[in-house]
Amino acid sequence: MTVAGFMSSRPDPQAVATAIGILTQRFGERLSTSQALREQHAHTTTWIPVEAPDAVVFAESEADVVETVRVAAEYGVPIIPFGTGTSLEGHVNAHFGGISIDTSRMNRLLAVHAEDLDCVVQPGITRKLLNEQLRDTGLFFPIDPGADASLGGMAATRASGTNAVRYGTMKDNVLAMRVVTADGSVVKTAQRARKSSAGYDLTRLFVGSEGTLGVITEITLKLAGIPEAIAAGSCTFPSVKAAADAVIVTIQSGIPVARIELLDEVQVRSVNAYSKLSLPEQPLLLLEFHGTDAWVAEQSERFGEIAADHGGGPFAWVTKPEDRTRLWQARHDVYWASLGLRPGAKGLSTDVCVPISRLADCIAETKADIEAFGLIAPIVGHVGDGNFHVLPLIDMDSPAEIATAERFVGRMVERAIAMDGTCTGEHGVGSGKMKYLEKEHGAPALMAMRAIKAALDPKGIMNPGKIVAAG
Amino acid sequence: MTVAGFMSSRPDPQAVATAIGILTQRFGERLSTSQALREQHAHTTTWIPVEAPDAVVFAESEADVVETVRVAAEYGVPIIPFGTGTSLEGHVNAHFGGISIDTSRMNRLLAVHAEDLDCVVQPGITRKLLNEQLRDTGLFFPIDPGADASLGGMAATRASGTNAVRYGTMKDNVLAMRVVTADGSVVKTAQRARKSSAGYDLTRLFVGSEGTLGVITEITLKLAGIPEAIAAGSCTFPSVKAAADAVIVTIQSGIPVARIELLDEVQVRSVNAYSKLSLPEQPLLLLEFHGTDAWVAEQSERFGEIAADHGGGPFAWVTKPEDRTRLWQARHDVYWASLGLRPGAKGLSTDVCVPISRLADCIAETKADIEAFGLIAPIVGHVGDGNFHVLPLIDMDSPAEIATAERFVGRMVERAIAMDGTCTGEHGVGSGKMKYLEKEHGAPALMAMRAIKAALDPKGIMNPGKIVAAG
Repeated sequence: MTVAGFMSSRPDPQAVATAIGILTQRFGERLSTSQALREQHAHTTTWIPVEAPDAVVFAESEADVVETVRVAAEYGVPIIPFGTGTSLEGHVNAHFGGISIDTSRMNRLLAVHAEDLDCVVQPGITRKLLNEQLRDTGLFFPIDPGADASLGGMAATRASGTNAVRYGTMKDNVLAMRVVTADGSVVKTAQRARKSSAGYDLTRLFVGSEGTLGVITEITLKLAGIPEAIAAGSCTFPSVKAAADAVIVTIQSGIPVARIELLDEVQVRSVNAYSKLSLPEQPLLLLEFHGTDAWVAEQSERFGEIAADHGGGPFAWVTKPEDRTRLWQARHDVYWASLGLRPGAKGLSTDVCVPISRLADCIAETKADIEAFGLIAPIVGHVGDGNFHVLPLIDMDSPAEIATAERFVGRMVERAIAMDGTCTGEHGVGSGKMKYLEKEHGAPALMAMRAIKAALDPKGIMNPGKIVAAG
Repeated sequence: MTVAGFMSSRPDPQAVATAIGILTQRFGERLSTSQALREQHAHTTTWIPVEAPDAVVFAESEADVVETVRVAAEYGVPIIPFGTGTSLEGHVNAHFGGISIDTSRMNRLLAVHAEDLDCVVQPGITRKLLNEQLRDTGLFFPIDPGADASLGGMAATRASGTNAVRYGTMKDNVLAMRVVTADGSVVKTAQRARKSSAGYDLTRLFVGSEGTLGVITEITLKLAGIPEAIAAGSCTFPSVKAAADAVIVTIQSGIPVARIELLDEVQVRSVNAYSKLSLPEQPLLLLEFHGTDAWVAEQSERFGEIAADHGGGPFAWVTKPEDRTRLWQARHDVYWASLGLRPGAKGLSTDVCVPISRLADCIAETKADIEAFGLIAPIVGHVGDGNFHVLPLIDMDSPAEIATAERFVGRMVERAIAMDGTCTGEHGVGSGKMKYLEKEHGAPALMAMRAIKAALDPKGIMNPGKIVAAG
């Protein structure tokens, strides 16, 4: 450890062993050092190699987390919070070893305040389980990053997904949290009021901090009413530019579209093959509208006119649940459908986000790069936010292919940043995108982030080697 | 200065004089030490006495701000950012003297990106000037705190206002900022993309930091499309509880109400007298709906049904601009109308915010207190957010009355906190509400805030004596 807040090498193995010994006495079988379990807790779905922790603690309460962090702090041992392991940029890797705190057993819905449209959850509850448990209340939690992630992980990575265009991201939907910080204190970031001007916004500081400032132990979430009516539809466009322009006009018109997803023609081809469909192999928009019967009909018709103005269409929409499900199945299956484009390969999921006016250009230049690099890489995007994903299909046993993919991602990120965009719209930084942070934010902002990290975690034990660590 | 980040006494007068001398050479007539100007820049609309700065610098560029901060940092002199001076909790007071940086000349709209629904402004532009300049674009900036505040001040205090229930607060509408921090660095908090998961959320950290972490020099703001149709209406209720219950059902139903304001019967009485109206002297809700013609009609009708279910009504709504203006005039005039309830007295504006389920109770208990304390204090609230204002009318020459008002506010704040609410929903902390922060957030959260302050402003020169300073 050389600089306050930043670990630069593995801690003394004897100190780690002592800490694990103390925690074993405390947790018994809830602490594991089995290799399989340790590796599973550093599972990562990028090219980043697995870096296993020294031990995994299955926490069942905030007190368990506090105790684990206190012991780790005393012995200078890293702490890596773990939810479901669905993050994409090496967030759960144990770069300097240490203790993975698995929060999956802390998965209770603690309270529902229906009148206030909020609920309180433990961090290990997944979004599907949460929505199942909310079903009888007429409310739902709208953020859907695709994977059945834990709410703690979603908060930690500032996740969003298909309906962020309407409901916002995790930064907009977390009202308050309890967080165990590096000295074992429990910080309550806010009260349950809808808004406050009382002091620094600790909630938003911990949302997206990826475990580097503390371990989330409780989250108060905004909920939304289940819409009375939902309409969904799809629409083919002659080009990505035409589709993006239709999206811009839709948003400008104030149509409160709930989802607006773009699949490029490569992605459509994969979906056709996977799902035995015969969609025209052109850019496709999938949309969803939430409201009353009359209002979703009006929104759908207005969008249909906008689509026609941009050469798209015809726009057909449906409202029956089974019809909607069939329509969205294609979107939900894109990951598996994509893999079918190159059997045996793995998908290297990456994302950027740009101002929506630059989206068509950014995608066009990215597609030119895909061709130039000889990659197979379908594109799917949350285009209402200017956010899109590319999934290069890579032979993970080929260092040359991985290197090519890394160069491709680097160019894509630099392109997005040059367009006033960000290196990641929703996946987070982890260790995979650390090297782009200074380019995106500039040195003074990165220094401010590092000063905050050092102030809240002077020993640098909280998820070291991530986000603001030196690249 | 005893603790990093926190000034505890006035700096050496010689150092202040030297700093002012250097800055006078640099700025000439743009630096003033006239007593009238200094006092005007510490004007405060609460009971908090005026504490004038030693000098006022009229900044015309970010470079001016950087230079002023660098000199102040070198000599350990406080910096107090100033917009329009409409804050309510002593935010612009110079508790330890120092230099007020007046940003009112930095009032340009730098760029409008209509396709992206955003714009870039200097901090001194006021919201009315901004909306005038945006008029031809079909876009508007929705946040309306009442006063014609500067956008820099609104960001610094995390302002909101009547239509936050639909459009959010400043935390939701600032995409990015440039901020001059305590060492004269310029931190760019984010790119212009709609969302990002790239690093700590510096934007939200600086929003609401009230000048204690830096001076805002540029803001990128989200804009909204001017609605095609606006409907406004009003509705009387038999009790605050009935009105609050109608609000809860309205929000739960997903009706995207743009404004929903409560006036208690005392406030209605003041408005009747001031505006020569004859509204029933009962709790009144004023509402506004934004959308298409069909959609605002549907929203208005649905609200009318909800109101009737709660004993309210009849709910009459209008869409013509002149009719809407007449309706809202009563709301806009509440401050002046209130003063008419006790000629010669001044209004001591305070606010709290609670979960909406507790709003009726909180207001009822507050009204009981108003009676017990013998105060005249009308109530007006942004009830969709659970936020309400009380305006005790006080003889500011009477220390006894001021002390009574302070006790009343203290009880109101403690009541709000006990209901899981906040000591201020939108006014901010300044020096007026510092003493409640630990009660609201708890010691660990306050310590985390102080650690952040010390990390970003180790000499404690940025607006000292505010928010997280020792009470």
